[in-house]
Amino acid sequence: MRTGHTHLFIPGPTNVPETVRQAMNLPMQDMRAPDFGDLTRRLFDDLKSVFRTQSGTVMMFPGSGTSAWEAAITNTLNPGDRVLMARHGQFSTLWVEMAQRLGLDVQVVDVPWGAGAPVREFNRLLAADTNDEIKAVFVTHNETATGVTSDVAGVRRALDENFHDALLFVDGVSSIGSLEFRMDEWGVDLAITGSQKGLMLPAGLGILAASEKAMLMSRTSTMRRAYHDFADMVAMNADGYFPYTPPTQLLHGLRQSLDRIATEGLDNVIARHRRLAEGVRHGVAAWGLDLVAEHPSLYSNTVSAIRTPPHVDAREVIRIAYEDYNTSLGSGLARLAGKVFRIGHIGDLNEGMCLTALSVAEMALMRAGTRLDLGAGVAAAQSWFMSEHLAQRDFRVAAE
Amino acid sequence: MRTGHTHLFIPGPTNVPETVRQAMNLPMQDMRAPDFGDLTRRLFDDLKSVFRTQSGTVMMFPGSGTSAWEAAITNTLNPGDRVLMARHGQFSTLWVEMAQRLGLDVQVVDVPWGAGAPVREFNRLLAADTNDEIKAVFVTHNETATGVTSDVAGVRRALDENFHDALLFVDGVSSIGSLEFRMDEWGVDLAITGSQKGLMLPAGLGILAASEKAMLMSRTSTMRRAYHDFADMVAMNADGYFPYTPPTQLLHGLRQSLDRIATEGLDNVIARHRRLAEGVRHGVAAWGLDLVAEHPSLYSNTVSAIRTPPHVDAREVIRIAYEDYNTSLGSGLARLAGKVFRIGHIGDLNEGMCLTALSVAEMALMRAGTRLDLGAGVAAAQSWFMSEHLAQRDFRVAAE
Amino acid sequence: MRTGHTHLFIPGPTNVPETVRQAMNLPMQDMRAPDFGDLTRRLFDDLKSVFRTQSGTVMMFPGSGTSAWEAAITNTLNPGDRVLMARHGQFSTLWVEMAQRLGLDVQVVDVPWGAGAPVREFNRLLAADTNDEIKAVFVTHNETATGVTSDVAGVRRALDENFHDALLFVDGVSSIGSLEFRMDEWGVDLAITGSQKGLMLPAGLGILAASEKAMLMSRTSTMRRAYHDFADMVAMNADGYFPYTPPTQLLHGLRQSLDRIATEGLDNVIARHRRLAEGVRHGVAAWGLDLVAEHPSLYSNTVSAIRTPPHVDAREVIRIAYEDYNTSLGSGLARLAGKVFRIGHIGDLNEGMCLTALSVAEMALMRAGTRLDLGAGVAAAQSWFMSEHLAQRDFRVAAE
Amino acid sequence: MRTGHTHLFIPGPTNVPETVRQAMNLPMQDMRAPDFGDLTRRLFDDLKSVFRTQSGTVMMFPGSGTSAWEAAITNTLNPGDRVLMARHGQFSTLWVEMAQRLGLDVQVVDVPWGAGAPVREFNRLLAADTNDEIKAVFVTHNETATGVTSDVAGVRRALDENFHDALLFVDGVSSIGSLEFRMDEWGVDLAITGSQKGLMLPAGLGILAASEKAMLMSRTSTMRRAYHDFADMVAMNADGYFPYTPPTQLLHGLRQSLDRIATEGLDNVIARHRRLAEGVRHGVAAWGLDLVAEHPSLYSNTVSAIRTPPHVDAREVIRIAYEDYNTSLGSGLARLAGKVFRIGHIGDLNEGMCLTALSVAEMALMRAGTRLDLGAGVAAAQSWFMSEHLAQRDFRVAAE
Repeated sequence: MRTGHTHLFIPGPTNVPETVRQAMNLPMQDMRAPDFGDLTRRLFDDLKSVFRTQSGTVMMFPGSGTSAWEAAITNTLNPGDRVLMARHGQFSTLWVEMAQRLGLDVQVVDVPWGAGAPVREFNRLLAADTNDEIKAVFVTHNETATGVTSDVAGVRRALDENFHDALLFVDGVSSIGSLEFRMDEWGVDLAITGSQKGLMLPAGLGILAASEKAMLMSRTSTMRRAYHDFADMVAMNADGYFPYTPPTQLLHGLRQSLDRIATEGLDNVIARHRRLAEGVRHGVAAWGLDLVAEHPSLYSNTVSAIRTPPHVDAREVIRIAYEDYNTSLGSGLARLAGKVFRIGHIGDLNEGMCLTALSVAEMALMRAGTRLDLGAGVAAAQSWFMSEHLAQRDFRVAAE
Repeated sequence: MRTGHTHLFIPGPTNVPETVRQAMNLPMQDMRAPDFGDLTRRLFDDLKSVFRTQSGTVMMFPGSGTSAWEAAITNTLNPGDRVLMARHGQFSTLWVEMAQRLGLDVQVVDVPWGAGAPVREFNRLLAADTNDEIKAVFVTHNETATGVTSDVAGVRRALDENFHDALLFVDGVSSIGSLEFRMDEWGVDLAITGSQKGLMLPAGLGILAASEKAMLMSRTSTMRRAYHDFADMVAMNADGYFPYTPPTQLLHGLRQSLDRIATEGLDNVIARHRRLAEGVRHGVAAWGLDLVAEHPSLYSNTVSAIRTPPHVDAREVIRIAYEDYNTSLGSGLARLAGKVFRIGHIGDLNEGMCLTALSVAEMALMRAGTRLDLGAGVAAAQSWFMSEHLAQRDFRVAAE
Repeated sequence: MRTGHTHLFIPGPTNVPETVRQAMNLPMQDMRAPDFGDLTRRLFDDLKSVFRTQSGTVMMFPGSGTSAWEAAITNTLNPGDRVLMARHGQFSTLWVEMAQRLGLDVQVVDVPWGAGAPVREFNRLLAADTNDEIKAVFVTHNETATGVTSDVAGVRRALDENFHDALLFVDGVSSIGSLEFRMDEWGVDLAITGSQKGLMLPAGLGILAASEKAMLMSRTSTMRRAYHDFADMVAMNADGYFPYTPPTQLLHGLRQSLDRIATEGLDNVIARHRRLAEGVRHGVAAWGLDLVAEHPSLYSNTVSAIRTPPHVDAREVIRIAYEDYNTSLGSGLARLAGKVFRIGHIGDLNEGMCLTALSVAEMALMRAGTRLDLGAGVAAAQSWFMSEHLAQRDFRVAAE
Repeated sequence: MRTGHTHLFIPGPTNVPETVRQAMNLPMQDMRAPDFGDLTRRLFDDLKSVFRTQSGTVMMFPGSGTSAWEAAITNTLNPGDRVLMARHGQFSTLWVEMAQRLGLDVQVVDVPWGAGAPVREFNRLLAADTNDEIKAVFVTHNETATGVTSDVAGVRRALDENFHDALLFVDGVSSIGSLEFRMDEWGVDLAITGSQKGLMLPAGLGILAASEKAMLMSRTSTMRRAYHDFADMVAMNADGYFPYTPPTQLLHGLRQSLDRIATEGLDNVIARHRRLAEGVRHGVAAWGLDLVAEHPSLYSNTVSAIRTPPHVDAREVIRIAYEDYNTSLGSGLARLAGKVFRIGHIGDLNEGMCLTALSVAEMALMRAGTRLDLGAGVAAAQSWFMSEHLAQRDFRVAAE
């Protein structure tokens, strides 16, 4: 029988904070009640802060992040439109597939899994697109499968340098609310996330923000859509309602998670993700293992994808951790299956939790056949956390 | 300040039973864990019992009932297909709109709000469709806006009598799990429901069952779809997984609600809905008010839409109940706004709750200007409940 | 199988409001943590407002109201002390028993069950007590078994008129936080309550307030005590701690319930109890049944004890309500068993709930053999609630 | 702001398992309902298994473990009775104080904090007690303040060897349900525990088991008691009721925790505590720190009390862990304050949690000025856990 806390280190759904969990423990209510908007309207406002947008329009679709992907595409593009996308991990691959299924003409740039969005190649292709055939560029901000964070601002610069007015789509499912993301500053037109990542809720809401330009495009877009229609959603949202029954318990949970983010401060949330991720990476380095991410500039602060040695099946590492130590690690997806396991370090997390992940992973790695010094990864992370703590204290002292 | 239990009598989301609520109060888990299927696979099996299908395939889409509508259409039909639909309430109207938006050629039969699906007219049109241009017939089994239950078996007979092989779509959002619904027996091809009605959960799952014929059609259907694709869903579901992150807390809640239905017995659930609904209708009759449903054969056992007298604004009735008595009644939708209020009597309910609804409604009606004898509706319902109780006891005695 | 909301109309434990329930749904914490006092110290302050005391000391003992009874006695009296008590219901009887067991010399005044504390007889006995042998007078403010509220202020006057300095003990278990109770103004020395009544929490905390005089007596009292010792408790409470592990989830729930009382306003809480109780009493009168309370001046606003007709077994009424209508009514205790059922109308309640109680009770009464007009009690209560509403509105209009 | 899971490593209240927490999230119910006993009666039976008694009588008092201490004493002894007790930690000291306050003539044997119950000295004193003046011997089975488990069976042997029929009281608050405890086999007369330790519930129930001999003594004992009276409790419990309102949510939680213990198997629960405790002790040894417990035979498997080096204030270790790492460690009590911190490893626990405790403690120890190698304690524990795992596997293989 499993005993004790289940240690959850997948990159989503993430650990739900107790205050959020409390808020979701409630009876149903009338989503057409006159005071329902008192709850919902503030959510839209506060979500804008998380997207760092002032001019954007935020929407929440009952569904998953995938649902929000579809909403973004079907409301702003037209059948047969050419779009520029990269494939460098499982989620960017799935996004390409969706775009193709929905009838877009996808110009795919394949780069190695572990690389980021190919900004230079995108720049070249945009420059070559003299007839403005490319209607949109898609960027997976944080490729959850590989633990790679791409340079969205760089893609915006590529667009600007070429005076190209393609829409900029960003999959921020595992970044928004956890990593630096600046919708307005970076000129993102469609920013997509889900409830079960940085927002620390169960899955069930696909959330997106659309720029003014994207909203304008949505008036004339001819792709077929119904459930995901922006116009219906925006019209009902104006008074705080939804075109169909929303998951009210998630909305109450969202109220709490937005309050938490506001209390901690979004900048502090982002800094904490960086600090904790760096601790995990120090541990991985101490093990002598490699990350899938090819370069430190690409390291994701929400998830680390770790390569096991050639003779060690990463699935076995995950199985041991799960069965014997009540710990969920993320699996290697698609071509990374068996070669990679992932540690999600996103959402409501602290140092002790990261050390739990490392200490359990050490035992599982060793039992699966990896040579390593027990405690070495933990020690490296501890050392980092302690130095970070001192640095912060010094910073505070100096600032006073 | 509001005090006391909030009395919820909208036709969905319905009251969540305590055991279901307990089951949803849990931390997140890995939806890719090896034992995740132990939870989910049984859900699919047990849902089949609720749909009363053996050969059908059940799917759950993160989303609302509307999401399941879209899934049903986009997976089994082709752009431009002619479909036969009726409009006799807000939800059937919205369904027509969706079909049109998704590019179907909708042959609409308008009947009065308060009438049921026009079986005879459908029969006539199917007979006239000698070229088999009609690819599907859509029936709103329970029109939640008007409190009308339609004759799905009759539509099946109309198809059969004309040897017509159009698909039969049924919106069972406010019927399945509460009213008599027999997918296999009635030859329903696409049966659609949501989590927040008879299944007594929060909103967040669009649930459907597809017949073998529907599954076959889905292999060749050329409508654009991605999020709602049957093939992806079915492939992943085979092992108990989902193509994207499912709302795990709802799955755990569903486990409990299906257990509840099994324990009570689906036939008993249906009989209870009939008994409680009849009590509410006795109350309405005692008030001298009319139901929107035109004929007793159409009366819905999950929701009663009640017309206020001409000079009484139904919105005022609802407002008083909500503001002064902490009671949510259903509003009149679209053309019924201000003329109708609704009492939802669906899901986890008992006699005392129905009497609460009637007693609060009496006060609200009177204060909004309706002439009635206080307590009269309550007394009529009480009398019915007592006679029903005696009848059941006699039945049990006789059976022993 | 039971379905629907369980209607709870016992006079405690009372219905727990959702916000309180949410607050109690939490993991354990260290009750010796440095910030634990941030939670607890404010509780003591806010409880003082509920007791309406400024100079009193509030304590919370893990236990029931009975536990607080014992704490009050053992800390302030000495073995063999004479105390003056009345017996007029099950709870005053139990209190007498406790006093006797704990070694007090109890001078008992027996009055009929249905009468209140015998102020005049107390006055006479106090006057006769020229040697000041009576060390304490005990008053059951609200006798939960009979639905009788006694005149505590009257007993204080009796003490004052006789210049008698006996301590005044008040059992306010089913009154404090719901009925008018004024510790300082009435000169109460030991006021006792529990968590599961007006404070709307589960059972588990015996709560009391001790006057300065009582605290002084506790320094020299020679009764044996350990668990319930004031000195240990007060010493630890000063920093927000407890001498043994407190039920932390109840403390968090208490935080919420005190916030609710503050938001509604204690005067409004008391007025609401009066309004709702009066509605129930109108219903009882319409049935033609009698309350146990002998005179309107004694009617309790937190519980009504209702006599069934001679030939009707009240246990049968309660059984039917419970088994067939998922409704808990209070039973007749001790000598009232079978003759009385009780409707608790205390705590988190509203009009609809009271009407549920009446409508279910009508069915149960009739099925148990009582002659009455179905709906009559409900109608009387509805009528009262409506007139009250109008009166309040007029009052507000006049005030503007 | 605190983020992430709060790591709780105090020796009670312990971590509440999710299934227990779910079970406690429920509305109030009538504790006098006819079916209430269906819940409670089984609890008494199953608690007997946890106490390992067949002939004993189990009682649950709303209160803390201290409450159960008092119940045990006041029901079975007489004022002035001589009892034999040892003082070797804070809780045994408090128990002595209680016995003195309640009027017993306590013969105290003081032994060092870190030693166990002085079996040989007890033996000597019992041998010398030729007039049978000692009416009871008290043993603190697990001294939570020092992390010492005493030899209860040894004390029983001492009694038997001297043909002494004093009652044997055992404080099993932090042992029963977690450590080997055999009431019948060891001839324990009064065994005491609380809800918030091995039973994995919040505080709120003082639980005890009384032998037939103890029950017999309770009929004639003349100590004053009321709230804690065995006779009242046993009489009501016979039908599943209580003499005052019990904390029903804890009873539902207890149902779950007893089910968990039964599912895991009490022997396995005990073995798990041993395995996890040993892991923690390996960590402590690797740090080069000492336990308070003087000898390995005394090591407690539910809590380790760890001495910090002379120059390191243990309070600082605890403060750092709490403030900076969201981790609650147990403090040094009374004379151990500042010299000792404790790691509770009792209740619902697993390897990952123990490693979290060690890894956080390492950082806190170092920052408070302790010299140690980061990761060293973690590595020692990991190594132990891995060897244990292999040993178990081999055992299972050999057994097949």
